[in-house]
Amino acid sequence: MGPGPSDVSPEVLAALSRPTIGHLDPLFVGMMDEVKALLQYAFQTKNEFTIALSAPGSAGMEACFVNLVEAGQKVIVCRNGVFGDRMIQNVTRIGAEAIVVDSPWGRAVEVDKVEQALIDNPDAKFVAFVHAETSTGAVSDAKALCALAQKHDCLSIVDAVTSLGGIELKVDDWGIDAIYSGSQKCLSCVPGLSPLSFSDKAVNVIKNRKTVVQSWFLDQSLVMSYWSGEGKRSYHHTAPVNSLYGLHESLVQLHNEGIENSWARHQKQHDALAKGLEKLGIKFIVPKEERLPQLNAIYIPDGADDAKVRDYLLNHYNLEIGAGLGELAGKAWRIGTMGYGARSENIALCLSALEDALNQ
Amino acid sequence: MGPGPSDVSPEVLAALSRPTIGHLDPLFVGMMDEVKALLQYAFQTKNEFTIALSAPGSAGMEACFVNLVEAGQKVIVCRNGVFGDRMIQNVTRIGAEAIVVDSPWGRAVEVDKVEQALIDNPDAKFVAFVHAETSTGAVSDAKALCALAQKHDCLSIVDAVTSLGGIELKVDDWGIDAIYSGSQKCLSCVPGLSPLSFSDKAVNVIKNRKTVVQSWFLDQSLVMSYWSGEGKRSYHHTAPVNSLYGLHESLVQLHNEGIENSWARHQKQHDALAKGLEKLGIKFIVPKEERLPQLNAIYIPDGADDAKVRDYLLNHYNLEIGAGLGELAGKAWRIGTMGYGARSENIALCLSALEDALNQ
Repeated sequence: MGPGPSDVSPEVLAALSRPTIGHLDPLFVGMMDEVKALLQYAFQTKNEFTIALSAPGSAGMEACFVNLVEAGQKVIVCRNGVFGDRMIQNVTRIGAEAIVVDSPWGRAVEVDKVEQALIDNPDAKFVAFVHAETSTGAVSDAKALCALAQKHDCLSIVDAVTSLGGIELKVDDWGIDAIYSGSQKCLSCVPGLSPLSFSDKAVNVIKNRKTVVQSWFLDQSLVMSYWSGEGKRSYHHTAPVNSLYGLHESLVQLHNEGIENSWARHQKQHDALAKGLEKLGIKFIVPKEERLPQLNAIYIPDGADDAKVRDYLLNHYNLEIGAGLGELAGKAWRIGTMGYGARSENIALCLSALEDALNQ
Repeated sequence: MGPGPSDVSPEVLAALSRPTIGHLDPLFVGMMDEVKALLQYAFQTKNEFTIALSAPGSAGMEACFVNLVEAGQKVIVCRNGVFGDRMIQNVTRIGAEAIVVDSPWGRAVEVDKVEQALIDNPDAKFVAFVHAETSTGAVSDAKALCALAQKHDCLSIVDAVTSLGGIELKVDDWGIDAIYSGSQKCLSCVPGLSPLSFSDKAVNVIKNRKTVVQSWFLDQSLVMSYWSGEGKRSYHHTAPVNSLYGLHESLVQLHNEGIENSWARHQKQHDALAKGLEKLGIKFIVPKEERLPQLNAIYIPDGADDAKVRDYLLNHYNLEIGAGLGELAGKAWRIGTMGYGARSENIALCLSALEDALNQ
């Protein structure tokens, strides 16, 4: 119950150990088509370019920036936690300019500040933000931010690492242009893959670049033909076959449950956890209306020893909760209720175990 | 028995489905220390910087180039197949200059040509080559090439994707400065990880760079502290926990067998395969003394239908052999005898099945 990797179901773990077959085997290619369709469902998109990148979410982030942004361009980057900060580093390493819009840690991105930045920078080409800040537990208004981006003729780049599968996310309805996620959060697959989806508008930007993408491995123009349903699958790199077995299984589970039901389940388990934490006198970092149900960032109670409590939970209850990150290091704990981890028995265990740990 | 992913043992497959734990969990961190020690054994190195990169071999290649090479520098790149060509693309995307030394496909890199290029380019900083060309089945003289690089005050960058674990490879004895491999060849783990090792000299080059590494995800200066045995493990990205369970198990198996025994086993199984292929009248692409035991590139016999034969093997015998790549597409098959795949029963199956397929 840390900030991820989340609990992985026995079915997904079992899928991982199926015999490894070739990445160009027709059976495997057929499974990839299913992974693509299931990811389109999870993202709520018809985007033709919807894939699982063969590397973790941080590589998914980099793939969005290096494929879309060229040196010298301006990107509005919203920062309200660790991952917004990482976006800035991605932008500057391309030789592009990051116009940083800061919002307080533990709060949503302030939409009016972003609008002002867009007015002040009419030559900006992109708006980038984190939908669900894993470092603070705050959710931002992705729909409003993407509408703003469109109004100002910018493409939106959205970090959905912790949001995908856990809270409402509608790529097509909201007009998101580039989005990446991670396999190990609310999808409850093992870490190592990054679901990725680009709108046709984003794909056109990639196709009309003036300069070559600086990364060969992340150059999506080289990968498109491998994931495309038509013609010959050309070889780019060896796909992580077994991890994709796991992702396929976790996406099948999400599809079977129904994505709206998954969102509702995350909210329900969060409510139960929040109620119990309140009884223990524990306070959330994030105001209720900006709170992620799947990532519960709470203040470490006065007198409690950060590392000692986490060690106790791990050693006595086989239960992991996360430490604070960045500005919140030493001040916060992060309790994940993601994917397969968002179950009543986990909430009950966590509350009892935490109470015990705090009484030691 | 394609060019990889290779056959994965039941023990490695079973390891993959162990419960996912946190990437900062002390148990996991302890396992990472073991992975590091086992990789040092596999590479025959004491290099402190020896890790498994959280992405496939192509990302390992890129990690070597983007961390070591800076824009404007000269790199001697040896090309005798597809992967030498990919190295060139990596060099140019950094804004560095590739001095290309071409050797024929299906042959070893010509050492004297490399020496001439070094004489002609006294300002070159690196020599990059592929130890075992997966696209052609040729092995190059890594020891001689690294000695040349040292003589001319260059760092060596070596692709050992298909060589690691399958043929003699001695990073410290040969003075290799940067080397990358893949998990899915002679280590017989699942695809998705890239073992990586840098000499202290290479690490110093990274520490003294004038410019920032263009990739955030592949910037190894950010990863060093995560893999280091000392002090706090700082978070960089979420490690692919379950894939690392698999790599750990495959490295334990290699260690138990003994690396010299593994090299000898690959040679022995190759000899058996070569003898059988000869009986079938099939010819190798590569002359005997430059031939990789673990990757057998052969000419498609006259009158045989490339795709039809491979489909027949797959559908009737559940046996994969690889197609030709690049210049050899449509002209060659590639039979892998790598890692757990290098067993007598596989050789026997392959020879009988191929004979049957050719008689259809």
